[in-house]
Parts: sequence; C-alpha cells; structure tokens
Amino acid sequence: MKNITILGSTGSIGTQTLDIVRANDDLRVVAIAAGSNIQKLEEQIREFHPEIVCVYNEEAAANLKIAVADTSVKVVAGMDGLIETAVYKGADIVVTAFVGMIGIRPTLEAIKAGKDIALANKETLVTAGHLVIQAAKDYGVKILPVDSEHSAIFQSLNGENRKEIDKILLTASGGPFRGRTREQMKDVKVEDALKHPNWTMGRKITIDSATMVNKGLEVIEAKWLFDVDFDDIQVVVQPQSLIHSMVQFKDGAIIAQLGTPDMRLPIQYALYYPERRFLAGDRVDFGKIARITFENPDTDNFIGLKLAYEAGRIGGSMPTVFNAANEKAVAKFLDRKIGFLEITDIIQYCMENHKVKENPSVSEILEIEQWAYELIENRW
Amino acid sequence: MKNITILGSTGSIGTQTLDIVRANDDLRVVAIAAGSNIQKLEEQIREFHPEIVCVYNEEAAANLKIAVADTSVKVVAGMDGLIETAVYKGADIVVTAFVGMIGIRPTLEAIKAGKDIALANKETLVTAGHLVIQAAKDYGVKILPVDSEHSAIFQSLNGENRKEIDKILLTASGGPFRGRTREQMKDVKVEDALKHPNWTMGRKITIDSATMVNKGLEVIEAKWLFDVDFDDIQVVVQPQSLIHSMVQFKDGAIIAQLGTPDMRLPIQYALYYPERRFLAGDRVDFGKIARITFENPDTDNFIGLKLAYEAGRIGGSMPTVFNAANEKAVAKFLDRKIGFLEITDIIQYCMENHKVKENPSVSEILEIEQWAYELIENRW
Repeated sequence: MKNITILGSTGSIGTQTLDIVRANDDLRVVAIAAGSNIQKLEEQIREFHPEIVCVYNEEAAANLKIAVADTSVKVVAGMDGLIETAVYKGADIVVTAFVGMIGIRPTLEAIKAGKDIALANKETLVTAGHLVIQAAKDYGVKILPVDSEHSAIFQSLNGENRKEIDKILLTASGGPFRGRTREQMKDVKVEDALKHPNWTMGRKITIDSATMVNKGLEVIEAKWLFDVDFDDIQVVVQPQSLIHSMVQFKDGAIIAQLGTPDMRLPIQYALYYPERRFLAGDRVDFGKIARITFENPDTDNFIGLKLAYEAGRIGGSMPTVFNAANEKAVAKFLDRKIGFLEITDIIQYCMENHKVKENPSVSEILEIEQWAYELIENRW
Repeated sequence: MKNITILGSTGSIGTQTLDIVRANDDLRVVAIAAGSNIQKLEEQIREFHPEIVCVYNEEAAANLKIAVADTSVKVVAGMDGLIETAVYKGADIVVTAFVGMIGIRPTLEAIKAGKDIALANKETLVTAGHLVIQAAKDYGVKILPVDSEHSAIFQSLNGENRKEIDKILLTASGGPFRGRTREQMKDVKVEDALKHPNWTMGRKITIDSATMVNKGLEVIEAKWLFDVDFDDIQVVVQPQSLIHSMVQFKDGAIIAQLGTPDMRLPIQYALYYPERRFLAGDRVDFGKIARITFENPDTDNFIGLKLAYEAGRIGGSMPTVFNAANEKAVAKFLDRKIGFLEITDIIQYCMENHKVKENPSVSEILEIEQWAYELIENRW
C-alpha cells in the first residue's frame, strides 16, 4: 500500500491523480488540499476518505467543515494548514499540483518530513530550485517529475549515467499560435489562447503554452531536475506532442519517450517509480500517426522562451521575477485587462527593473514575488 | 584495456569495429578472422598487431602466412582455425560479424570459453537462438546486439524491467522498393536492389533489406534476444531510419532510440556497455530533419516478412530453412541466375517442403541448411 497526499486535488493534475488511485487498489489518499473548490473537495472526501483536508481559503474551509461534519476528516486552512497537510505523517509521497509559488513552502516542508515528491508544481523548482534540490539531497528523498516533458526526460535517463548526457531535447508543441508573428498575435483573445492543440490542462498553463513561457519555465525546471547547463537544454518544436522529450548522450544516441498525450502516464510513473503498471487508455498507433514533424522554436516572436533562458542564465532571484511577472500578467490577460503580447512585455519589463539577489531564501523569493506584483500593478 | 576478437574483420561491421578501436586507446584487437580477403587482412595485421588471424579459405591462409612471415602473428585456417580464433584466450569480447550460418559454431564456442558476444551475425540467433541463449545463460556471458535495431531496443530497455514490456516496435526503412507492388518489382536488377536509401552495408544484407527478409530475420532475432512472443513484435516502417527501434511498456509509454544512421554507434555501445563514450560523427539536427514518417509494412507485396513470422512461429528448424533458403537465393540473385521475386518464392517453396525438427542441434541445423541448398540447386 502506498499512501499519497495531493496538494491541489481539485485541479487538472489532482483529479487525474485521483483517477490513478481509483484504478489501483494499492494506492490510498491520506491527505488532500485545494484552494477553494469545496464542492469538489467534499466529493473527494466522500469517495477517497482522506484523514486530513486543507482548504487554503479560510472562509471556504469553515464551510467545508460544516458540510463534512458527518465524516471523521480533519479540515485545516491557510498556509499553516497546507503545511500540516504536506507533512502529514501517513503519506509516503506528496503530489505537489498547486499552481504557482504557493507550492514552495509546503514542498520544502514535505521534503524535510522525508516525503518523496511527485512534482507537478513547476514554479517551485523555477523559483526555489536551489533550495529544493539541496533539501532533497539532505533529506534523501526523491523528486519525481510529473510534467510530461520532465517525466519523459526522467524515463529516458532510466539506467543511464547522467555524466554521459550531451544535451536535453525538450519538446514543445509550439502552442496554438505556432507560426504566427508578434503582429499576428496582437489581437489574440482569451478564448483563442485557451485552445491548446493537444493537451487538456488548467487555464494558467494553457496560456503559458500559448506564449511559450511554459516551455521557458520547463527549461529552468529541467536545469534543476537534471543538473545540466542551459546551453545543454535545447527546445525542439514537435507539434504533434507525441515525443514527450529526449536526451542525447555523448555517443550521439538519443533516447526518447513517446506516447499519447495523457497526463495520467507521468503521474502514474511518478507514483510507482521505478515500476511500470498497466494503464488503461489509447496507445500510439504508428500506422495512423503518419508523421512527426520538427521545427526550431521561434524565439523572435515568442520572446517568453528567450527571456526564460536569460532569467535562468542570470540565476539567483531572476527566475522568480520571470515567474511572478508571468503569473500576474496571465491573471490580467485572463481578466481581459491586458493584451496577449503584453504578457511577455510585462515579464521583460520586470526583469529589466530587477536587481538580482543571489541564493534567495524562501522569504526573499516571496518578497521578490510581491515586488514584481506591485511593479506590475503600478504600471498596468 | 579491453581485448577484442573480430570474426569477420574485413566486412562492413568488422572494418567499422576497427574504426572504433582506432579511436580508443583502451581497446586492443587480439584476434581477427575473415573469409579470404588477405590483402585487407594483411593491412589489418600490420596496423592492429593481432596475435592470431584466421582465414577461412585454406589456400588464402597459406598465402597470407607467406605475406606476413615477418610478423609474429599466428595464421590459422578453416572451421578449426575459426574456432581457435573465437576462443582465443586473450579476448574479453568477441564481435561476431561473419555473414551467414558459418558463425554458429564459433559463436557457441566463444560463449563456452566465457567471452561476451557483440553479436552482428544475426543468422546465428535466427537458426540457433535456442542454443545460443541457453549457452549464454549457462556460461554467464552477455549477448550484446550490434544490429542497429536490436541495439536500439537494448538501449530502450536500459534500466527497465523486461516483464513490463508490452511490445517491441521494430522499425524498418522499407528498403529501396517501398511502395511497390510485386508486379512492379518483377524486373528489379541487382544494381537497383543494392541501392539502400539510408544505410551503407554489405551486399547480402542490402538485398535482404530490399526484400524485407532482413526485417524478418530481425524479428526472429528480437524474439531470442528479448524473450518476447512474435505477437508482441510489431514492424513499423519509418523510411528515414532515424528511429532505430522502440519498446512499448504496459503503461503505454514508448521508449525509443534515435540517431543518425551510423553503425559505429551500436558497435561502440556493445564494446563499452553499459558505458557510453564520446563518438565523433554527425548528430541529429531536428531543425533540419523536418519530419519522421510512419507506415505499416506491406506484407502482401513483401512476403519475406510474412514468411519470417510464419517460420518463427513454427519454430524448431523452420527459421533455419527460412534463412538458408534466403542465403542461397540471394547468392543466385547476385549471380543474376534468378529474378528478384524468386528470392522469396524460393524461401516459400523450401518452407513448404520442410518437415520441422524441434530443438535442432548445431549439426542438425547445418544438415538442414544443406538440405535447403540442395533442394534449391535441384530446382533452380
């Protein structure tokens, strides 16, 4: 029996993690957390019987407490509650599927409590990679990537010596606006940006895919997960999202992981690693696929990717600024307050106005996040 | 220092193995063998200073002995000499790169002498897989595939649990006549069949690629190397020869090995396994490749592949008949005695006229080979 905590149980990764739990008798959910969707949380409590539940929003937590008063579940709230959930004693592995930098502290605390991490919250690594990777080493826990690309890289590295990596080939679909110029993306609407060609994902990450900022975040994430230089991470556009990523070794051999676009695969792989369990679902049919195509990414028009490499290479607190500016800008775009291109313009503006802090602590990371938010609020 | 014996040192795989030796200070050639090309053998003796050399052809051996009388190399001949070379004490690993069933006995003897085998002689596994795999187990030696496809599968299985394999996806270029009907291949000339679109290989294997008999032999080879059922080996036509093969696991994940078409990679991988060394050469440029395409194999027109599955499923001595008939038929085609389509017609005819012997011994395999040869000589 493997005991699981899911931080972000009502989101896309969270509900798909529960699909995996539903299909496997030897997985048990002991703790869940979500932002405010208490209706879904109540359903999950009644189906999976976790021992503790955190609702980040305090008011929603109070309402949930009343709704599930007939059960034995413990309801907690806020950041303290989130950390209590993250370190909850019964769990072997914590799925960190919160969106945004809210995941940093619970992830670090879970690591310190000796939990393996199935990491879907990429912002944690992007902003606090230096702290998370060091903590994982110090406490001897595994960081298992749940992102399809990083899981693919992780699978491609299975049995290999990481010293023999030549470069990581991080694949990208290119998003719904692949091939467009900036001029042609000027009037992009929220509805257009939310239509991803291959993957069904949360709203924020779908916008990040459209700007290719998501790929930029993944580049920084890959740097931390696989301990490679930015020069050795190459983004390859592969619009069919069939090759989920690749690793090229010193001898020129490339190992790749392919599959249908189904997030349940990397989730299940992380939960059972190194074991592979049967997973119901479509299989790739090469007779039907006909072809896989490749392109170089267009960083002249998708400047978010170029900015991510820049932020990553500068290091220190710059990736935090990149990420925080993007979070705020995407929220504004989804609120129809700014245009599509302004998302990356805002990131660039914040990066240009930031004085880098080396090796930032968690509180410094969170302060810099606030600094970026305010900088944006003052101007947009 | 790793000491190497190369059986078939003057052929395509043999000379490329020597390229690898030339590029690496810690590889040493202790023994080589070839059929009759004594000019090339003399060059190799003077460059690599092996301790023993076998020339299969006795007359050629006598001539070589005179030519290299100024050196300390021991020259041996015939099957006895080939076996003496295969078991030569100084070697850690034997590269079996002879073409044809001549490789069976030396390979088995090398295994019994405790040598790891870098196996390029696919006929050995096709006809005597049951003996070779058992011997490798009994004597605790590794069988390291050198074929690009089997090396790709072997690399894709690195770190994986073989019990979790769902199926093997063996890629095929489809050869120079991909897309043609039997009618359109009726008048194919030797020159046409020798033009392989991607790989530079020996003459026999190039014809085998054109008929897709080569892929059939590889299917049977894969069955022995990876202990899978024929139902779990699927041939996928991938004309660019970029994906060298793939493995699909129970969870639906596919691991693939890609690379430029360069046989030195699988050779080097086998010599240094599990280590990957730098290998000079072109790297895949995904920006330039543009695409990889896929097709199902056309077994109605390329009946060699269908016959191979049939021979493999029947088992026992049938794969020997498949292989022996093909060897003889290809020789006749290269001698312009028969037409292109007759190659597979001859295989079919021999299979139809063969009474299967279960678990054939080496001498039975060689007798059945002779039986097939005579059957063909009597009719064509």
